[in-house]
Amino acid sequence: MSKFIKKASKTIGQAPGSIIYVGERKVEKPSISIIDYDEKNFQEKEVKNIEECFPFKESPTITWINIDGLHDTEIISKIGNYFGIHHLILEDIANTSQRPKFEESGKYIFVVLNMLYFDEKDNETKTEQVSLVFGENFVISFQEQEGDVFNPIRARIRDDKGRVRKSKADYLAYSLVDAVVDNYFMILEKMGEQIANMEDELVANPSTEKLQLIQNLKRDIIFLRKSVWPLREIISGLQRTESDLFQDSTKVYMRDLYDHTIQVIDNIESLRDMVSSMLDIYMSSISNKMNEVMKVLTIIATIFIPITFVAGVYGMNFDHGVSNLNMPELTWRFGYFFAWGIMISIIIGMLIYFKNKKWI
Amino acid sequence: MSKFIKKASKTIGQAPGSIIYVGERKVEKPSISIIDYDEKNFQEKEVKNIEECFPFKESPTITWINIDGLHDTEIISKIGNYFGIHHLILEDIANTSQRPKFEESGKYIFVVLNMLYFDEKDNETKTEQVSLVFGENFVISFQEQEGDVFNPIRARIRDDKGRVRKSKADYLAYSLVDAVVDNYFMILEKMGEQIANMEDELVANPSTEKLQLIQNLKRDIIFLRKSVWPLREIISGLQRTESDLFQDSTKVYMRDLYDHTIQVIDNIESLRDMVSSMLDIYMSSISNKMNEVMKVLTIIATIFIPITFVAGVYGMNFDHGVSNLNMPELTWRFGYFFAWGIMISIIIGMLIYFKNKKWI
Amino acid sequence: MSKFIKKASKTIGQAPGSIIYVGERKVEKPSISIIDYDEKNFQEKEVKNIEECFPFKESPTITWINIDGLHDTEIISKIGNYFGIHHLILEDIANTSQRPKFEESGKYIFVVLNMLYFDEKDNETKTEQVSLVFGENFVISFQEQEGDVFNPIRARIRDDKGRVRKSKADYLAYSLVDAVVDNYFMILEKMGEQIANMEDELVANPSTEKLQLIQNLKRDIIFLRKSVWPLREIISGLQRTESDLFQDSTKVYMRDLYDHTIQVIDNIESLRDMVSSMLDIYMSSISNKMNEVMKVLTIIATIFIPITFVAGVYGMNFDHGVSNLNMPELTWRFGYFFAWGIMISIIIGMLIYFKNKKWI
Amino acid sequence: MSKFIKKASKTIGQAPGSIIYVGERKVEKPSISIIDYDEKNFQEKEVKNIEECFPFKESPTITWINIDGLHDTEIISKIGNYFGIHHLILEDIANTSQRPKFEESGKYIFVVLNMLYFDEKDNETKTEQVSLVFGENFVISFQEQEGDVFNPIRARIRDDKGRVRKSKADYLAYSLVDAVVDNYFMILEKMGEQIANMEDELVANPSTEKLQLIQNLKRDIIFLRKSVWPLREIISGLQRTESDLFQDSTKVYMRDLYDHTIQVIDNIESLRDMVSSMLDIYMSSISNKMNEVMKVLTIIATIFIPITFVAGVYGMNFDHGVSNLNMPELTWRFGYFFAWGIMISIIIGMLIYFKNKKWI
Amino acid sequence: MSKFIKKASKTIGQAPGSIIYVGERKVEKPSISIIDYDEKNFQEKEVKNIEECFPFKESPTITWINIDGLHDTEIISKIGNYFGIHHLILEDIANTSQRPKFEESGKYIFVVLNMLYFDEKDNETKTEQVSLVFGENFVISFQEQEGDVFNPIRARIRDDKGRVRKSKADYLAYSLVDAVVDNYFMILEKMGEQIANMEDELVANPSTEKLQLIQNLKRDIIFLRKSVWPLREIISGLQRTESDLFQDSTKVYMRDLYDHTIQVIDNIESLRDMVSSMLDIYMSSISNKMNEVMKVLTIIATIFIPITFVAGVYGMNFDHGVSNLNMPELTWRFGYFFAWGIMISIIIGMLIYFKNKKWI
Repeated sequence: MSKFIKKASKTIGQAPGSIIYVGERKVEKPSISIIDYDEKNFQEKEVKNIEECFPFKESPTITWINIDGLHDTEIISKIGNYFGIHHLILEDIANTSQRPKFEESGKYIFVVLNMLYFDEKDNETKTEQVSLVFGENFVISFQEQEGDVFNPIRARIRDDKGRVRKSKADYLAYSLVDAVVDNYFMILEKMGEQIANMEDELVANPSTEKLQLIQNLKRDIIFLRKSVWPLREIISGLQRTESDLFQDSTKVYMRDLYDHTIQVIDNIESLRDMVSSMLDIYMSSISNKMNEVMKVLTIIATIFIPITFVAGVYGMNFDHGVSNLNMPELTWRFGYFFAWGIMISIIIGMLIYFKNKKWI
Repeated sequence: MSKFIKKASKTIGQAPGSIIYVGERKVEKPSISIIDYDEKNFQEKEVKNIEECFPFKESPTITWINIDGLHDTEIISKIGNYFGIHHLILEDIANTSQRPKFEESGKYIFVVLNMLYFDEKDNETKTEQVSLVFGENFVISFQEQEGDVFNPIRARIRDDKGRVRKSKADYLAYSLVDAVVDNYFMILEKMGEQIANMEDELVANPSTEKLQLIQNLKRDIIFLRKSVWPLREIISGLQRTESDLFQDSTKVYMRDLYDHTIQVIDNIESLRDMVSSMLDIYMSSISNKMNEVMKVLTIIATIFIPITFVAGVYGMNFDHGVSNLNMPELTWRFGYFFAWGIMISIIIGMLIYFKNKKWI
Repeated sequence: MSKFIKKASKTIGQAPGSIIYVGERKVEKPSISIIDYDEKNFQEKEVKNIEECFPFKESPTITWINIDGLHDTEIISKIGNYFGIHHLILEDIANTSQRPKFEESGKYIFVVLNMLYFDEKDNETKTEQVSLVFGENFVISFQEQEGDVFNPIRARIRDDKGRVRKSKADYLAYSLVDAVVDNYFMILEKMGEQIANMEDELVANPSTEKLQLIQNLKRDIIFLRKSVWPLREIISGLQRTESDLFQDSTKVYMRDLYDHTIQVIDNIESLRDMVSSMLDIYMSSISNKMNEVMKVLTIIATIFIPITFVAGVYGMNFDHGVSNLNMPELTWRFGYFFAWGIMISIIIGMLIYFKNKKWI
Repeated sequence: MSKFIKKASKTIGQAPGSIIYVGERKVEKPSISIIDYDEKNFQEKEVKNIEECFPFKESPTITWINIDGLHDTEIISKIGNYFGIHHLILEDIANTSQRPKFEESGKYIFVVLNMLYFDEKDNETKTEQVSLVFGENFVISFQEQEGDVFNPIRARIRDDKGRVRKSKADYLAYSLVDAVVDNYFMILEKMGEQIANMEDELVANPSTEKLQLIQNLKRDIIFLRKSVWPLREIISGLQRTESDLFQDSTKVYMRDLYDHTIQVIDNIESLRDMVSSMLDIYMSSISNKMNEVMKVLTIIATIFIPITFVAGVYGMNFDHGVSNLNMPELTWRFGYFFAWGIMISIIIGMLIYFKNKKWI
Repeated sequence: MSKFIKKASKTIGQAPGSIIYVGERKVEKPSISIIDYDEKNFQEKEVKNIEECFPFKESPTITWINIDGLHDTEIISKIGNYFGIHHLILEDIANTSQRPKFEESGKYIFVVLNMLYFDEKDNETKTEQVSLVFGENFVISFQEQEGDVFNPIRARIRDDKGRVRKSKADYLAYSLVDAVVDNYFMILEKMGEQIANMEDELVANPSTEKLQLIQNLKRDIIFLRKSVWPLREIISGLQRTESDLFQDSTKVYMRDLYDHTIQVIDNIESLRDMVSSMLDIYMSSISNKMNEVMKVLTIIATIFIPITFVAGVYGMNFDHGVSNLNMPELTWRFGYFFAWGIMISIIIGMLIYFKNKKWI
């Protein structure tokens, strides 16, 4: 449950705009990296001190500052103040339980996203908040921990592939959002596989642990939906924005990104339908098992109860000596075989009956 | 049920605008407190008599009058008349079964909210109506009983933390609404925990009391939804209002508040999904238990019924003296062991069968 | 079912605008009452003849004509013609299977509502169509039978309480609609109580009659929804109307009424959720009962079947005389106690097993 | 299923605008009837040859041409060409698997409806496509077979009742659509009765055939919805149309018709809710039956298994001669009564237990 | 699952606009065919080399280039560049996991559709992406493999049937989309039949394989919906487009096509309702079977358990010699018949009881 409703207790009662990190401390020390480029120049470096980023602000080249680790709110506060970012936005960056959203002011655009990754260790889908602030010639990205989702973009800048070096900061920001959305497809694929595997197992062997797994899948999907649905509004908002920060050439790409988001949503809805019908399969499967158990019981019982009765009859002690009307079968020459005959007839009769009913 | 549809019988047949308190009397005597402040001055006092508040109306400082306890409708009526509030609004303040809503007139804005708190004693989520009326330099808040949800704001005013002392009455009103919404997160967290605990127990031990608890949770969530959904409209209405009472600087905070409300709604919907699937788990869990019971019965019955039959056969009284074809086994040297042999074979055969079926 | 789809066969094939009463004749003879008032004057009388109402039309005072009983379509036709009401509206007044709606022409506004009342005798919620036509200084109300829902308004006019004597016909019309809506709260309260009682009984004793009762409740709620949902459009329509018949001062009250209607709808939706989950409780409760039955059977069977086998074994007739290997226990000194020992061990073992399983 | 998705194979691969009849041939030969009237004149005749209709086109009187039977696409083609109707519309008239819709061109308005009738022979609701084309002074109606739904209108024209003779072609067209909608009420009433009957039977005797019947009802309702929902758009479209073909006086009637359509839809939704809850009743009813079966088994088994054990005990052959500790009861004077005493005590104990459990 | 979420891994991390084919290679070698026509001329040929198409671009005749097989992205790239198509669109053509959509630029309109076909071999509905780019006098269609769905259009062009030769490229494009939509009806018919067959089998014989089949149907329908819902927007978008590429005469046909799409969607929703209720039938059917099994068990057990008890009683060894009160029946002359009498009475009593219960 904890991943749905993050501990917000820390922030309750605080004045709005207080920068408080609510997540767990995921990295030892925040790491800050800078990539500075234009069509001709390229520079990449790790810095220890946030103040080292400040000189890049004034340069005409595009500067991408990436900060991994948010527990040191001092850093957020300093860079925020230097780049003139509203304190409510700084609060949102640190408070990692935000709903995805975007906000624009005259000088910059702020986007919060949820990035999803599959934690192999805990075997569940986890989330990390990614915040972007970008202005005319800078992009600042905040992540809770180091990740590899932005690496292909770093490589494309470094090797000058695609359009990124020839474009402005808005294209870089688009590329980062695009990388996050692309990542959803990976998660969806993984969940799709899990569901397909689960379904086969469910019919074969419905157990309580399976029920637990279905619930987990359901929760993952609820969680995915919560992360992705707001994206639609965000991206269509970015498309329609009249901010000067967005160039027309980038808007074509935003439209493409919008299509991808719709596709992600479509797929989530399909997965949801699949998972919701898994419980039905589970229940049907259990009913089927129960039916099978009942049949075994019924077959054994309905065969043996009558013949046990026959054996019981000839175990009675009516005194043949007193009256030869009492249990004359007991003194017949073939009395024993007669009894067996009756019993075997009953067995055969029952078997035929069950055969007809297609129970055996 | 009573919390859904509050006794409104009292008000039926009354002329509209009659001020009638419909709740139970929760406090002995209404308590009235006043906080009066501007950037430099601060004054806080408890008053016994509502008339003592009146002088503050004309002062240029911001006055926050808080009234806890609504059964003395005289107080509502007096303050309402003095501050020029429409009698239909006074009726709404007293009639604590209102749907959250806001209304604006030229001189003041009226907001009704439901505050939620978890009553440890009755182990259920309860509600209390909070009404706010605020004008240019006053905020009047009405609560059904004393609560601690506004205490952090009182502290912030007293200690001059945050923006509240530097801002107008609209920021104070925003802070009060924000406090109520923040409080929802606490309730949601609590419910989230309850649900997580419940789920584990459900699989382990599905009992009728659990069913009752699920129903209670369901009702709490229906109730939460009813309280929170209208908030969205209210806050987006306040955002869009053209009233002079709202300053632009406060609207940025309203937007933040709106985001929080959406997040609360998102979380409620997730909880709802969770709870609605709990009944499925419950049913599955019961079916599983039943299956287990059936298996035990079937295993015992299908093992013992056949061997009881064997014992029954050799309990028959066919007269070996009359014909030595009758039950020759009884006179065999190892007849008894032969019978046990048959019976043990049946037992082993059945056990193998059940092993194959994975029932044991 | 009949209350959902009223017999409309009578009207099929008739030309539109034919005034045909489709309900059952609920009162012996239509009764017509007139209340005529303004701020200073008040007059109330019962009339036998519809023509007696006509003189009031021209008077400047406000005239409220109330007609209980619609089977005499002659009356509807006469008063309709005299007050210049369109024949399609007269058809709607008589055809009591209308969906709630309102229609405005230049000279009057027409409102159809469903009034609900709980019929103690048949133990079900019934409906009655209430139609209002009001113009500048008259209100004509049509009911299928005499009811007491308008009595408080009559009293308020008579005793000059509230605003009604000081206001125009639109306020009276508002008051009548308000009385009908207030009445819904009574019905909702009653249903809420029924549901709460039912739920407790359901868990205790799920029987087929309960199922029937749940279905009835469901139907009542479907029915309520059909009656109330259109009200929302009607009242918001009346609020937005540009008709001169509506004074601004009344519109404030309409807004209040609208809030009430939303509250009714909210409550209906909550009840709906409750009732729809009752079937789940019912099913769970039955499953629980079944489980209990199965456990009793299983406990008895799994205890007694094995020990019956033991008794069966020692009832076998293997001939100890022929071979002393045959059933030596039978000749042991404590053989009988030995047998009982085995049987009691089995019983204790099983009881421990069931204890562990928490079945007993 | 076939009634949902009509064989459209015939039309696949054909050029758009090809006039192909896709239904089964329901009548031997198309029959063509003409009614020609104005306020003073009236003429009614059957014609053999479609060309006989043509002269009526130019006359100022209103001409209603009704064609029953669509398999002779030649007729459709001829009349279509003569009255200047677009070939795509002619295709729609013949292709009787259309969704209800309306289309307007400058000179005529085209309406397709589904008429429903209850086929007593097959015991199911069937559909027939009714197409109307009307212009300034003509209405052409196409039906798949002869029906009696338009007879009351014919009678009203013949006998000059109602407004039809005094009005234009638009009023006649409205009357025809109104007749189709009125007919839905008949179907709904019939279905309502079926559902009410079914419900009672379901609780009494849930069988597989009932399940089949529920499915049929469900399908009928799905089918009804598909036929009626588009009607809403059609009629509201006709209401809003700016075509000269529609006179203002007729629009009042269209509004009335719209209300009726909404009422039909409301009723369908109610029936849908009813039917969808029937499956729940069915399942509950089966569970109840199963419970009852289980109780009978359990009562019999738990009474007789223990006493059979008692009988088994005293059937053991421990040798009283060897040791008088072995089964001394057998030699007691009242041993037999003692055994019966135990057995009767068990029976009584069990009966009390079941009584307490309210199983008997 | 794989068909829902196509392997998109290949494209992740690639710069936007990279042309990458994501499907499986379905044909050996792409085949390219050209049809070039106007009202008077007609030319049809297969080409080996994509460059052979280029000359047709400038000719005033309408050129339809059809490319089957997309794995050779070189071809897409070349033709795209020659016809001046945006690289993002070329990416969409190759990336065959697109959601249906359309995009217009000044010079051409781009449409992506999903074509469905039933794969007899795998017994499931499969999908293939069809992309169309059309400009003033050319249409380029891309398919993943060769299909026969466009053959009727080729024939119509060749034989100059219908309007296609007399119209522009927009009509050809419309015809291609129309062919795809028409094809949906075939798929729907097939699914309708499958569902109808399934339903009958379900009641007769509910097995786990059936459950699997229901799931497959469900998935097919989810898949169909995903393919068809976006079509509605596409076609209504094409209808409303202000592009010069669309002639007014074609828009009438687009409207017809829109109606067909709505009909397809209606039918899918109906099928969905049908399939979703199949699981209910399945569950009911299993419950019914279980009930039947239980009844057989109960009938056999409740008849034989009591009479086995009777036999057990007379198998007791109470010593008649010691006391003639002990089991006097054993020495009665008709003792044996007496015992049988009791047993037969029990049997008859039980049979009457079951008869009354309607179990037999």
